[in-house]
Amino acid sequence: MSLSALKRAVLEANLDTVRDGLVMATFGNASGIDRTTDQVVIKPSGVAYDTMTAEDMVTVSLDGAVVEDRLRPSSDLDTHLVLYRAFTGIGAVIHTHSTYATIFAQALMPIPCLGTTHADYFRGDIPVTRHLRPGELGDRYVAATGEAIIETFEGRDPLEMPAVLVAGHGPFVWGRTPKEAALNALILEECARMAWFTKRLNPQVEPIPDALRDRHFLRKHGAQATYGQTERL
Amino acid sequence: MSLSALKRAVLEANLDTVRDGLVMATFGNASGIDRTTDQVVIKPSGVAYDTMTAEDMVTVSLDGAVVEDRLRPSSDLDTHLVLYRAFTGIGAVIHTHSTYATIFAQALMPIPCLGTTHADYFRGDIPVTRHLRPGELGDRYVAATGEAIIETFEGRDPLEMPAVLVAGHGPFVWGRTPKEAALNALILEECARMAWFTKRLNPQVEPIPDALRDRHFLRKHGAQATYGQTERL
Amino acid sequence: MSLSALKRAVLEANLDTVRDGLVMATFGNASGIDRTTDQVVIKPSGVAYDTMTAEDMVTVSLDGAVVEDRLRPSSDLDTHLVLYRAFTGIGAVIHTHSTYATIFAQALMPIPCLGTTHADYFRGDIPVTRHLRPGELGDRYVAATGEAIIETFEGRDPLEMPAVLVAGHGPFVWGRTPKEAALNALILEECARMAWFTKRLNPQVEPIPDALRDRHFLRKHGAQATYGQTERL
Amino acid sequence: MSLSALKRAVLEANLDTVRDGLVMATFGNASGIDRTTDQVVIKPSGVAYDTMTAEDMVTVSLDGAVVEDRLRPSSDLDTHLVLYRAFTGIGAVIHTHSTYATIFAQALMPIPCLGTTHADYFRGDIPVTRHLRPGELGDRYVAATGEAIIETFEGRDPLEMPAVLVAGHGPFVWGRTPKEAALNALILEECARMAWFTKRLNPQVEPIPDALRDRHFLRKHGAQATYGQTERL
Repeated sequence: MSLSALKRAVLEANLDTVRDGLVMATFGNASGIDRTTDQVVIKPSGVAYDTMTAEDMVTVSLDGAVVEDRLRPSSDLDTHLVLYRAFTGIGAVIHTHSTYATIFAQALMPIPCLGTTHADYFRGDIPVTRHLRPGELGDRYVAATGEAIIETFEGRDPLEMPAVLVAGHGPFVWGRTPKEAALNALILEECARMAWFTKRLNPQVEPIPDALRDRHFLRKHGAQATYGQTERL
Repeated sequence: MSLSALKRAVLEANLDTVRDGLVMATFGNASGIDRTTDQVVIKPSGVAYDTMTAEDMVTVSLDGAVVEDRLRPSSDLDTHLVLYRAFTGIGAVIHTHSTYATIFAQALMPIPCLGTTHADYFRGDIPVTRHLRPGELGDRYVAATGEAIIETFEGRDPLEMPAVLVAGHGPFVWGRTPKEAALNALILEECARMAWFTKRLNPQVEPIPDALRDRHFLRKHGAQATYGQTERL
Repeated sequence: MSLSALKRAVLEANLDTVRDGLVMATFGNASGIDRTTDQVVIKPSGVAYDTMTAEDMVTVSLDGAVVEDRLRPSSDLDTHLVLYRAFTGIGAVIHTHSTYATIFAQALMPIPCLGTTHADYFRGDIPVTRHLRPGELGDRYVAATGEAIIETFEGRDPLEMPAVLVAGHGPFVWGRTPKEAALNALILEECARMAWFTKRLNPQVEPIPDALRDRHFLRKHGAQATYGQTERL
Repeated sequence: MSLSALKRAVLEANLDTVRDGLVMATFGNASGIDRTTDQVVIKPSGVAYDTMTAEDMVTVSLDGAVVEDRLRPSSDLDTHLVLYRAFTGIGAVIHTHSTYATIFAQALMPIPCLGTTHADYFRGDIPVTRHLRPGELGDRYVAATGEAIIETFEGRDPLEMPAVLVAGHGPFVWGRTPKEAALNALILEECARMAWFTKRLNPQVEPIPDALRDRHFLRKHGAQATYGQTERL
């Protein structure tokens, strides 16, 4: 994918989060990475969505050096970069303050896997990070947010669990492409909403059995996936 | 109804579920059957709603043999077929993950008949299936889902109760036509939403009396129906 | 107001309920009365809102005799007529199944007056009828619904409390004009929604003081009203 | 800013509250002040939003004397004026009955600072006024509402806490400009909604640590702000 194609894909992912009702005001940012050049393309900081163009996307290197500097990059850039460096299989990162995912992040509670909607995209409960420590709130705050995510994912496969809740803050979501990350952000929000209401209706309900969860997750992901038109079209 | 008319009706029912906010991403599928030829028309798998055409609908026989195979049918096809074979009075089936109906399915709880909105369309509480057993999660998973629905409906008239909640998954809804099934899917979601909030407001509330329920259900269904313009127009 | 102007006003009130999200499918009906001729204009039964015209409105006399009979009137006509005969100051009636008002009706609980939004339109808690008795569910069911409302309003001024919840069913709302009744139906729904969430947040909260309630109600209603541009424009 | 530019900005802020779903019917009003002339521009009372023009905005002096009197000013004018006189750093005031903020106002409970979304705009819990006393409900009711807000803000910096809940009524919000006040009104509503759901999910959750709160608030406000394109563009 060329840099300009990546910029268009990142713009579209940013706009998807707005169209899907996941982002209010300028609260959100999407980025993508070209793994052949290690260039990261990210939304500029504080620019209105309705006038944003692909050319407004900011390009930086994987270590954060600015490649093009017409606009300042999203203030969450360093979190994205930490994720790209640690999760080498991912190609896009999205941050939103979507309502129900943020509610779970504020409540410091993981989103339990209560149904197949959830299992189709996330293989288990969606984890929440620990709160940052006072010493992590200084200049390196944004990078430290990413590092707390990495810490939470020790022993996990980020492609089987493409989302996390940052404590007291909101979700970060990823995927192989900007389009996939945007879809994951949408599904995450709906699963959070349904989990909230399911637990109030039946506080005793348990996550669905592992076998049912995997039946759904593996239908859409991995080598044995059978969903969609991929093989046929 | 000709096959092409049935395809258009099935397409419209699929689009209705999106317009009514019952389907997110590609999470849903509607089908219809021509009972004179036993041909079933169903949405293709994983195709975007905004570009879908009537010609994209897939035609299969009642035993699942593909009649036209340009696109792969919905991955839930086998559930639809089991329902058509067992419920001979129905002409259309719709599956969604609509939010509140799915919440009841995840909570493993039936939707109680708490008002006349519900009773106008569903003659009693909307049942939930048992969870599938480990042995039912293999190759025959999708058909086994249909069989669990049939098991749940022993002793019930599917035209008096045109919906079911599949445990940990979501609703299946049906009707005599694709249009009627789409309306039932919409009403189901609203009744689920109102039931959720009613029970939190007054946990002691009971289903409405049977006589009031039947007064409403029979006003709109069956030989004595008096609602609408049928006799006059 | 001429009969054709009344029909247009009644059509608009019906469409307002749809535009305001108070009516799903064909679940609702608005009517108006010309008090000089005692002619009542009401929505036809089961006709789709998007193709409905002013000419489709059905005209009947106050005792229910059909004046024009091209279409069958709303199946709830007899409830409207009972209200017009008993509440001689009202000029329009609207019935919806709007979500939160119906939730209170299903929970058999009045909507408490918890804020000035409510007090601007309704002078106190919005009452709920008793359930109809088995003997009232036969041919006279629809009229009996109206009579249960009248019974609930003994000692009340219907212009100070222009709404009621029918137990297990949903709200009936009225006003001096179709436009005012449609506004009351919208405010009712929002007040029901806010009351639901307020009571969960603080179960101990009491209705606002009578003096504050009347300060707001009388600012917008009655001889001392000061709100809007009436005197100036 | 010229008077006509201020009128356009105030009109836009009024329309923003409608576009953002914060205002139903005519329940809301926005104003702005020109601090060089002490002229206040405010929405007229009870005029429909869809036909309102910048010329319909009403201009008054800071002591309430009408400068232009074609239309009657918002019935809440006196509350706005009290705020402008006491909070000399603010340039705009907005009043809405937005759903979740009003729910907290009705519940007589402050909105706790449970996440960074909140902390980005409000430095701590959003306070609620005391109920007005019987003697304050007469002719000076609207001004007394403003005075109760001032009383609540003793010891607070209104630019660090640009919102308040009036007990049993709804929110007042402000900012340096009409545009900023409108954004604050939107964020307030979303934070109220998320706080409501967070507290039900985890009743034990505490406000986020002060250091995290200030890390976010000071990133967007005050001399050390680093968010957006201000320095670069």
